[in-house]
Amino acid sequence: MTPVQADQGRIDLLSPTAMPNACGFLWNRSMMIQMNCRGFATAQFMQPEPAKYTTGPALEAKTFMQPEQPYYAHHPGRFFYFKDEVTGELFSAPHEPVRAEPDKFLFSVGQSDLCWVVEKFGLRVTLRLTLPPEDVAELWEVSVENISEQSRRISFYPYMPFGYRSWMNQSGAYDSELGAVLGRCITPYQKVEQYFENMHLKDIAYLLHDRQPDAWEVNQNLFEGEGGLRYPDGIAQDSLSNGDALYETPAAILQYRLALKPGQSETYHFVLGPALDEAEIRSVRERLLTPDAFKQAQADYHRYVTQGQDHLKVDTPDPEFNQFVNHWLTRQVFYHGDVNRLSTDPQTRNYLQDNMGLSYFKPEVTRAAFMHALSQQEPSGAMPDGILLRRDAELKYINQVPHTDHCVWLPVCLRAYLDETGDYELLDEVVRDWEGDREQSVFVRISNAMRWLAEARDERGLSYIAQGDWCDPMNMVGYKGQGVSGWLSVASAWALNLWADICAERQETALEQEFRTAAADINQAVNDHLWDGEWYGRGITDDNVTFGIQSDPEGRIYLNPQSWAMLAGTCNEEQQQAMIAAAERELETPYGIQMFAPAYTAMRDDVGRVTQKFPGSAENGSVYNHAAAFYIYALYQVDEGDRAWKLLRQMIPGPDAEDYLRRGQLPVYIPNYYRGAWRQHPRTAGRSSHLFNTGTVAWYYRCVVEGLLGLKGERGGLRISPSLPGDWNSLQVQRTFRGAVFDVSYRRDSQCTAVTVHLDGTRLEDNLIPEPRAGQHYQVQVTLP
Amino acid sequence: MTPVQADQGRIDLLSPTAMPNACGFLWNRSMMIQMNCRGFATAQFMQPEPAKYTTGPALEAKTFMQPEQPYYAHHPGRFFYFKDEVTGELFSAPHEPVRAEPDKFLFSVGQSDLCWVVEKFGLRVTLRLTLPPEDVAELWEVSVENISEQSRRISFYPYMPFGYRSWMNQSGAYDSELGAVLGRCITPYQKVEQYFENMHLKDIAYLLHDRQPDAWEVNQNLFEGEGGLRYPDGIAQDSLSNGDALYETPAAILQYRLALKPGQSETYHFVLGPALDEAEIRSVRERLLTPDAFKQAQADYHRYVTQGQDHLKVDTPDPEFNQFVNHWLTRQVFYHGDVNRLSTDPQTRNYLQDNMGLSYFKPEVTRAAFMHALSQQEPSGAMPDGILLRRDAELKYINQVPHTDHCVWLPVCLRAYLDETGDYELLDEVVRDWEGDREQSVFVRISNAMRWLAEARDERGLSYIAQGDWCDPMNMVGYKGQGVSGWLSVASAWALNLWADICAERQETALEQEFRTAAADINQAVNDHLWDGEWYGRGITDDNVTFGIQSDPEGRIYLNPQSWAMLAGTCNEEQQQAMIAAAERELETPYGIQMFAPAYTAMRDDVGRVTQKFPGSAENGSVYNHAAAFYIYALYQVDEGDRAWKLLRQMIPGPDAEDYLRRGQLPVYIPNYYRGAWRQHPRTAGRSSHLFNTGTVAWYYRCVVEGLLGLKGERGGLRISPSLPGDWNSLQVQRTFRGAVFDVSYRRDSQCTAVTVHLDGTRLEDNLIPEPRAGQHYQVQVTLP
Repeated sequence: MTPVQADQGRIDLLSPTAMPNACGFLWNRSMMIQMNCRGFATAQFMQPEPAKYTTGPALEAKTFMQPEQPYYAHHPGRFFYFKDEVTGELFSAPHEPVRAEPDKFLFSVGQSDLCWVVEKFGLRVTLRLTLPPEDVAELWEVSVENISEQSRRISFYPYMPFGYRSWMNQSGAYDSELGAVLGRCITPYQKVEQYFENMHLKDIAYLLHDRQPDAWEVNQNLFEGEGGLRYPDGIAQDSLSNGDALYETPAAILQYRLALKPGQSETYHFVLGPALDEAEIRSVRERLLTPDAFKQAQADYHRYVTQGQDHLKVDTPDPEFNQFVNHWLTRQVFYHGDVNRLSTDPQTRNYLQDNMGLSYFKPEVTRAAFMHALSQQEPSGAMPDGILLRRDAELKYINQVPHTDHCVWLPVCLRAYLDETGDYELLDEVVRDWEGDREQSVFVRISNAMRWLAEARDERGLSYIAQGDWCDPMNMVGYKGQGVSGWLSVASAWALNLWADICAERQETALEQEFRTAAADINQAVNDHLWDGEWYGRGITDDNVTFGIQSDPEGRIYLNPQSWAMLAGTCNEEQQQAMIAAAERELETPYGIQMFAPAYTAMRDDVGRVTQKFPGSAENGSVYNHAAAFYIYALYQVDEGDRAWKLLRQMIPGPDAEDYLRRGQLPVYIPNYYRGAWRQHPRTAGRSSHLFNTGTVAWYYRCVVEGLLGLKGERGGLRISPSLPGDWNSLQVQRTFRGAVFDVSYRRDSQCTAVTVHLDGTRLEDNLIPEPRAGQHYQVQVTLP
Repeated sequence: MTPVQADQGRIDLLSPTAMPNACGFLWNRSMMIQMNCRGFATAQFMQPEPAKYTTGPALEAKTFMQPEQPYYAHHPGRFFYFKDEVTGELFSAPHEPVRAEPDKFLFSVGQSDLCWVVEKFGLRVTLRLTLPPEDVAELWEVSVENISEQSRRISFYPYMPFGYRSWMNQSGAYDSELGAVLGRCITPYQKVEQYFENMHLKDIAYLLHDRQPDAWEVNQNLFEGEGGLRYPDGIAQDSLSNGDALYETPAAILQYRLALKPGQSETYHFVLGPALDEAEIRSVRERLLTPDAFKQAQADYHRYVTQGQDHLKVDTPDPEFNQFVNHWLTRQVFYHGDVNRLSTDPQTRNYLQDNMGLSYFKPEVTRAAFMHALSQQEPSGAMPDGILLRRDAELKYINQVPHTDHCVWLPVCLRAYLDETGDYELLDEVVRDWEGDREQSVFVRISNAMRWLAEARDERGLSYIAQGDWCDPMNMVGYKGQGVSGWLSVASAWALNLWADICAERQETALEQEFRTAAADINQAVNDHLWDGEWYGRGITDDNVTFGIQSDPEGRIYLNPQSWAMLAGTCNEEQQQAMIAAAERELETPYGIQMFAPAYTAMRDDVGRVTQKFPGSAENGSVYNHAAAFYIYALYQVDEGDRAWKLLRQMIPGPDAEDYLRRGQLPVYIPNYYRGAWRQHPRTAGRSSHLFNTGTVAWYYRCVVEGLLGLKGERGGLRISPSLPGDWNSLQVQRTFRGAVFDVSYRRDSQCTAVTVHLDGTRLEDNLIPEPRAGQHYQVQVTLP
């Protein structure tokens, strides 16, 4: 039996110890919180760069979200202690820090809330976290019910550690007028100009309550004392000390004394968040902490977070898959397009793909994103490494390392948008430079980008890699200016072909020819220089060493060049079969397909950074889902639907217990990777990164809609061309397309030799549903052999 | 009764809970370790910037050492668990993580070692940490003795958490061939050039042992399990699992099974440190882990760390003061001069003062440091904000903020060196630019620096402050280029006068006149613009607001302008008495004298950064010992010896219990501050920062030698002019001066009306011992009224 149960839009975990890293996440326009089933939390908000209002008790580094986040006793979290005043017995909900074995435990991840029910010594504690749609504020509802036969005297202690706030200034105080604990600090600075930058930082962390506590503590060390987090001195005492924290690590701890008769319960509401000043906290109290406002925010947030979910509903023979697609997939796609991973400078390829996902239910956002990205195109036609979303943003981290693939994503993503919306007017929209006066149409800009791609090649005709391309961050292949990328070459060929198609649709014959020729030229060069007998090599270094080939002991086969060669038309049928067989043999694992194998175990200094990563983790031989998604997409394109389905299904944890425990993640999102190196490190293979930022989801959506279900838009309408698993005999789908709703039922018929489609009872000769009328409801019957 | 006992060169703490933050520190040329009495550790080494080989389990920020370092359960540390195999009882030494109440506890801080003796359930555990003189390596010696009447079966587990090593690559493994646990990682990087920079980083943390363990664990999470650090699952099991850590947080945990008869003991040796590769670890094993080598390193290290201590020995009626001066003061002075606070770019003022301290027992180092600092003088005569100690170093943190005081420290510190050594040849040494060809003598360079100081003044004649001067880091007084500093003005006057004296000694009359005139001019300007009736104001802002004056509700009186006005001859007798009375009234606390008062409680944005610091902490109204030292020095200059002594004595914690507990620090060093704001925050006032990097110590030494004991060098010899506390009737001092040893006995005689001095029995008319002969031993009798 698995420790996980799925219900409509909820995933439930029944044990705090079976999957100790299992978590859910909530986000809104301003913030994100990942809550671990045991109470640990990782929350960020934008001010304007990602910032934290609760941290660990050490001075934490500022960094991007870390994979496989390690938890430790003092990791930030949201904890609720319960002490039996008579026996002195203690437990904490969700589970940390006391770690008492619960009589009953439930961690229930909803789309717009995270709930826990914990029973221990005759108490039932129910916790519920939601967010409001806009504010940076956690809304906590806590109920305590006496489920024993006796009257009980209980002390209840919400405990929210604020963490080490600042070496310059930190303090904690209880403000009875505000009804809040305040953890204050001043973000450290040394230069005058930083003072002016920091002036608007929300340096206060607060915990607002709706019921007056009997006592409080705001001093982390005084609270813990010698008892530590397992049995804090503050709790061992009769009453918290009502003190302060003066340059001491602050925390918000309240004490409520309850007398509960059998069956009686009490409910409390709290709001936790950061603020600039008391006025802002007061405003939050007024807007969110009245009973009606709290409920309203919960409802508003649910509406907000489930946007677009009515655009695709599936009822297949696979209940876990239905559950994932109907409740979690669109949610994760929406998250990416809505907040761009809480970044101010998303990588260009991420920005385009994340917004591509919104083509299916918020195409106006996708449209604006394309135009915004193109406004930052360089005069050469190249796209920058990241897209700035605010005037005060700057390129950070990996965006300071030159990558050469960003132009590729323009036609690749635009194709999905055009197919879904038929909005070809976008191509003639004029885009003005973000900094400057140049005005060019979308069509001209993308043509220039394609020309840049066609030209950024060496004398062999292969694409330069510079310090990196997409999801294998190999920074030393071509840093001297000579090295080339096999993947980027075929990706360029695909992009050029896609753009040539669009040129053809516009009767731009000369341009079509130019790009088609360039694509063919690249494909020839790739076949001449990188075909290795069974697959394509990954690249050729500055010093002319071809890698990703059979003679390499590590990193001998890479998935991406194969996937994209299929999409680009680089390979013939024979090559394709050899590539697919090799990928199956060398890259597949029980948890998905690896991006390459074998994982590097030591530095290969003509390849670089990827070889420095831990074998099996991140990109080094992991099951990198984003790469896997393109392989799946390509498999659907070449009519390998069964293989595609197997890999598509593997991206979702479960349904068997071993798989849940192995991955350690609930099926509420697709992570960026599962650990690979299955042949090298079987103990850890399959583990989830627990990072839900990934270009995978937009492609997963596209694979489901276009590949599996075969409900693909095209200029003239909706093309029906499913590729269903062999053991699926019937299924129902509802899909919204260009404003019309299609109820599609699929059925296998042994009499049938080819797919036939009936629209509202009428057989379609070419399986193409012509341009629908928005608002209309259509019935579609699909019959398959 | 105090929980602290002092013996010759050791300070002992008898409880792990009385002063939970008490610590000792050890350093050598390459590293520093601060060990808390309960087992927590903060260790840094140079590679070439300060780096850590053990961290917390979160991604820690890289930063300078933090004041009042907060500890938490998973803070890095060195821990030793002991399990009774029969009863399952557990404790850990020193105290964390189990926190079992010991039957007996001793934390004994020596000058070259840190020891613990912990007794619990019939076991006596003795821990001893030393360093070798050069290597980055902790030498741990652990003995376990059965002090019960029964034979015992024990499992002993050294536990050294390595912490979260890297998001790029981390692992842990046991290497039986090396006899070590290795925690490997690769320091993260994204740019190609960082790879080449990182190639030589010591990314391995290792724990070497001299006895083969029965089992091991290297995986932090597997070790802890549900039991957590208080009773780890790994220990609850019969045997550690001998596993690995694959991208999981590594730790070094060994298990030794011991059968101990009554009275029997076993001893183990471990070496913990960072390394580049296995070869380096093997070399450490060969050089340090044989029984002889370990002992030899301990002895060598003791010799190294106690250098210079024979140059000053005092035997006064105050045993705690004797203990401090004879064993800890010189050690701390030596630490500063020897390793420059483990920095590659010490602030210029720190570099000069830290090296000034070595004038008294390693003057050749001081001499070289002056020349090195001057080699980085700018063409304008200005001194840079920091002195680069390596070619690959760069100015960091506060050294990127322009400060205007650095030139001041040249004559101020050189005066001490010249007085102590008589080495006037230094002035004619030619110094070549660190980058460039310019060659100028020390004399010319300092004259240019003085001219720069004299010129960097406004139309009133006051010194510009730019973004800051010395120990009140007020970055917004003069960032627009107008604001001036009261302290820097009088400091410039003192510096100019000191340099004029030296010019006079060289018969450079014109120069003498130039600098003397400039000093007088400044003094006049300060009296005209900053005298506020009872004291001098601290400065005037860009917008012409004078601050540090009586009408200011916060920051109304600053100590530094008063101290330095006395040294610069700015004030007349009446002003001086008013200043001293005001300082006593407004700045003195039971734990020393505050740098200013009242501490700022909110931003004053024409003053800046200091007002952002927490009231009482760091510079914001703290007892900032460095500032206090100058006040004391000035008091000795103006014959206020009793006041000076009181404050000098207050810098050392103790001797009464309340004072130890309040400060939370053992008297093994002077910290940079004790918390101030005594009138505002009495609960926390007096707490030590626990930071032992401070310019205070060189001045403390100078105050003791020149002021209190009155054994001050001058060009012609040793001037005897003591200023003893009224209740001291006799004392003995041994002091080495210019290679000669002086045994000085002081005695009060009610018949006596003025200080008289006998040298080897002969009365000296002018109390000046003429130039001594190096190697000679002299007897001096001083008789006081």
